[in-house]
Order: sequence, then structure tokens, then C-alpha cells
Amino acid sequence: MTDAARSAARRLVELLIARGWTVAVAESLTGGLVTASLVSIPGASACVRGGVVAYATELKQSLLGVDAALLGEEGAVHPEVARQMAEGVRALAGIGGVPADVGIATTGVAGPTTQYGRPVGTVFVAVATPTAVHAEALELSGNRARIRAEATRAALAIALQVVS
Amino acid sequence: MTDAARSAARRLVELLIARGWTVAVAESLTGGLVTASLVSIPGASACVRGGVVAYATELKQSLLGVDAALLGEEGAVHPEVARQMAEGVRALAGIGGVPADVGIATTGVAGPTTQYGRPVGTVFVAVATPTAVHAEALELSGNRARIRAEATRAALAIALQVVS
Repeated sequence: MTDAARSAARRLVELLIARGWTVAVAESLTGGLVTASLVSIPGASACVRGGVVAYATELKQSLLGVDAALLGEEGAVHPEVARQMAEGVRALAGIGGVPADVGIATTGVAGPTTQYGRPVGTVFVAVATPTAVHAEALELSGNRARIRAEATRAALAIALQVVS
Repeated sequence: MTDAARSAARRLVELLIARGWTVAVAESLTGGLVTASLVSIPGASACVRGGVVAYATELKQSLLGVDAALLGEEGAVHPEVARQMAEGVRALAGIGGVPADVGIATTGVAGPTTQYGRPVGTVFVAVATPTAVHAEALELSGNRARIRAEATRAALAIALQVVS
């Protein structure tokens, strides 16, 4: 994990705890790194419920409830897919019928080849709260590891901004 | 990710692809690092379906089907909990009714304090295949980051051994 990701994760965990909010994460290209960054912060158990790595496209539908027609038409790398993943993981990580307050989602192309007609480095991040869903497009460069690390940092930073 | 974890992840991905097997991961204390290690290997999409980070104990029950009475009596850090997580994630990551071939699970105490009466560094890893479930106990030392990294490496190494 990069220092920048760790710093964003720490500030996000502190903010969530201060608000009494919980968080859940749905990851595709980041493969678990966003959740791992949050869990690495001492005290994270007060706000982190967990997450899903929906790496296979079918799991985005079966676990997170992403619309099958949308996945069929647009593929998995699309801002609306990210939005639905973020909303879906809030519900999936519900406890006693109470969804997580915040859902964070990542989907994108880590490379080495294009996917769904999207160039390597295309990433969508979405953050869902009880009142809104925010999605953001990123165009990242570098190899797979670099794109994943930067997508992880950006997802945490965007979540921090949305929750603030 | 440590070099040892990366090496174990690479060998496991290669072996799974050679066998035509798929894998899913259920993580607690490792928080996504096992899944991220697998996804970091080029070509991983041929075998990695995804995973769940069931950090909140309730999600071990609601998402992975771990027995509530077991969690109530023994807590979440127990070899049978790891076994049920590994079996549960195989089913959860099913596509078209076909479970993942291999399920890997981690649960343990990363610290800084004891949990469920278990000392810091107590970790259970389980690996489920279509024919058996193997569980192993680890006693790790060091800080949270060290315990997580070593649990990640060990989970990958144990899975490699079980699948070989």
C-alpha cells in the first residue's frame, strides 16, 4: 500500500468513526486493496463491515445486483456499473436489515489489454451514501500494479471527499 | 505484498489454470490481501472469481453461512469458522449454480488486543476443494501489518499445498 493510500484510508476511517457511519467496499480491478487499506488502520473494526471482490463479471450481478442488461450492453467498465456496485454493497453488507452507510466501488481496466472497448487505465469509482451516489471517471497510466495502486488511492480520496 | 506472497500467488494461479479450477476467497483479518495477491498475477482472471471480506462477524453468518451458534459459542477465531467460510465462499462465488472449485479462508487476531479469548497472532486458514476441507492453525508474531502479511503468505502457501 502506498503512503498516500494509507493517509487517505486513515482520514476516512477517522471521519467515519466520528460520524458513526459504517462502510462496505465492492472491488473489481483493485481486487481487495481498498478494503485492505481500510482494515490496516487501527480501530477500523468500528466502521468497516467488509466488502466484496466481484472480479468475475457474473458476480457483479449475482452478489451486488448490477443490472444484467447493463453489463451485457456496456460491459463491466462503466460509471453506472460502479454506481450500482456501490449501492449493492451497502445492502449486501447490511446487518439486521440496516445497510452500511457508505458504499465504495471500483471497476476498470488494469491491463495489459483493453476490455469492453475501454483502454487500459480507464477506471470508474463510485461512492454511495444514504442520500446520493457519486461516480467519477479516472484515466490512469502505468503498469497493472501502478494502475491498481492509484485506483485504490483515488477511491479512498474520493470517498473522503464525498463523506466530508 | 511480500515477495514470498507474490511467489506463492503466482504458483497457485498457474496451478489452478493448469487444472482448469476456479478459486474464491473469504477473508477476515487479512482484509482483502489474499484476493489482491491473486489478482495481481497476470492471467488471474482465468481462475479468480472473487471474494468476500467478512470483517464484521455478522457477515460471516449472513454472507458465508457460518453457523450462528458456533459464532456465538466459540467466536469468529476458530478452525471450524474458517472451514465454514471456505466452503461458504465456494458457493457464494458460484456462477450458474456451479461453485468455485477452491475456497480459501482466513480468520484470526491481528491485534493489538486479544479477541474471543485468543491471543494476538492466532490465525486459522482453511482451504476447501470439491472433495475436502483442510484447516490449519498458525501462531504468528509481530505487529498488525506483519501478522496480516504473514497470514496472507501462509494462506496462499497452504492453498498451493492442498491443491498440488
